[in-house]
Amino acid sequence: MAKAITLVESTHPDHRALAETVLADLPRPGTPSLRLGLSGTPGVGKSTFVEAMGLRMCAGGARLAVLAVDPSSARSGGSILGDKTRMEPLPRHPNAYIRPTPSARHLGGVARRTREVIRLVEAAGFDTVIVETVGVGQSETMVAEMTDIFLLLLAPGGGDELQGVKRGIMEIADLILINKADGALAAVAQRTAADYAGALRLMRRRQTDPDGVPKALTLSSAEGHGLAEVEAELHALAAWRREAGVFAATRQRQVLAWLDAEIGIALDALMSADTGFGTTRETFVDAGMSGEMTPPQAARALIQRLRTP
Amino acid sequence: MAKAITLVESTHPDHRALAETVLADLPRPGTPSLRLGLSGTPGVGKSTFVEAMGLRMCAGGARLAVLAVDPSSARSGGSILGDKTRMEPLPRHPNAYIRPTPSARHLGGVARRTREVIRLVEAAGFDTVIVETVGVGQSETMVAEMTDIFLLLLAPGGGDELQGVKRGIMEIADLILINKADGALAAVAQRTAADYAGALRLMRRRQTDPDGVPKALTLSSAEGHGLAEVEAELHALAAWRREAGVFAATRQRQVLAWLDAEIGIALDALMSADTGFGTTRETFVDAGMSGEMTPPQAARALIQRLRTP
Repeated sequence: MAKAITLVESTHPDHRALAETVLADLPRPGTPSLRLGLSGTPGVGKSTFVEAMGLRMCAGGARLAVLAVDPSSARSGGSILGDKTRMEPLPRHPNAYIRPTPSARHLGGVARRTREVIRLVEAAGFDTVIVETVGVGQSETMVAEMTDIFLLLLAPGGGDELQGVKRGIMEIADLILINKADGALAAVAQRTAADYAGALRLMRRRQTDPDGVPKALTLSSAEGHGLAEVEAELHALAAWRREAGVFAATRQRQVLAWLDAEIGIALDALMSADTGFGTTRETFVDAGMSGEMTPPQAARALIQRLRTP
Repeated sequence: MAKAITLVESTHPDHRALAETVLADLPRPGTPSLRLGLSGTPGVGKSTFVEAMGLRMCAGGARLAVLAVDPSSARSGGSILGDKTRMEPLPRHPNAYIRPTPSARHLGGVARRTREVIRLVEAAGFDTVIVETVGVGQSETMVAEMTDIFLLLLAPGGGDELQGVKRGIMEIADLILINKADGALAAVAQRTAADYAGALRLMRRRQTDPDGVPKALTLSSAEGHGLAEVEAELHALAAWRREAGVFAATRQRQVLAWLDAEIGIALDALMSADTGFGTTRETFVDAGMSGEMTPPQAARALIQRLRTP
């Protein structure tokens, strides 16, 4: 499997062609998998959480793959996949597989490869996948677009103390977890959970939660408090969504969005410099920007040019 | 101008070609315009707000065009553009132009036409444009994508009383206005504004606001309280964003996004049924969905098919 993943992550054209043949021939997994997204700012305790929750899940019989999405490899220092945590029990558990962040230049490439690696590990029998992101740029949205349930891990505190959560995250978070609810921070964590629950109640109810709003729970990954409750909540939410058809609908929408993104990537590749199309494309973009052509005109002229090689 | 707008809104192919010629030949407006987006759930007082704020702006010398975006014409009953409000002073003010909702089948078409109408009214000398939406489906995001400042109008109340605001709106709102801050509701409105300010402070600061977070203000459109403050805040924010280069950057990004959307529309048109391409496209989409092809393979096969007519 590691070999197949290396192939999928390779940018060499020959490897790419082979990787796609491998991917198209993969068996569909027998049991439906559970794909979890996880985001949290550096220092919030993501690695401790993945370690503790991962061990619980593996102990319960899950086969767990942990992947990371991090567009800038320079920023991966705080991730679960750093050298330090390789010494922890989870990476050595027989049911667990942990894959370091692939280095990639742009987020689109990371997205494609991560989606493909998810298919690989599921075909290899892993029934639970955690895709972790440090939340640089658009990576949370990207991870939410390839997972069933998105977990947002936060530190206790709020307002001016805590400025790490992007606004759009409220749209995609399915479960808000306030970590480090231990010792002196336990009371602050409760208050933070209440603040987020309050903020979420200001917004429109959604069909993808049994109560119409995501839950906000507290836990201590270090001391183990609340882990059982978080795991139970996760499985309850997954069961409810499967039953309600939310899972199936979400995955179908995700594949369509992936296909749309790939059409964009394929077009970009086609229109990039080495096909001699590059300059022409810039011409249309410039014409659309300057107002010389309207964007609808520029788009049609571009497509027309594409059809007459 | 009304004639040009009718032309732009027409779905007849001949009209479309002529409309695009007209649009490409429009003079660029001399003074930079201010484009305001406005959203709020039915009953929140959008028409009263537009009427009161519009009259203030026109009295101050602005030339104001009010457009509406409403993908479902059946839902436009509560809009500023209903028959009732045609009797109000604003539509009869010499500096004001109010355009009823164009009927259109899909949001993409509404978006294109509204962008084009914005260009038309600006070329005709209107320096302030309000684009109003009742917030059905994705219309808020669409309006935010064609305006400089997005206003969210809310009623006093919160939590279970107020479930109208979509989560993603926090991402796009530039100014949150709690309307109906009069009589018995004045205190509730203050509390609602504080609740939203608190919710916004839980999130990451952004570069597009002088303070890093959007302001939440209260007003009474009916009694006139707070209107001067809202107008001053609007102009202060616009001035700051112009100075900081936010306006220019936003508009450039918006034109590029429009161009991308138009490329998608042009491709869809090309691949739709009457060109004989429809079935083939479905084949690739189905292959991508079933796992028979990976989405990257399906996308490339589709583009390949497109290039060989």
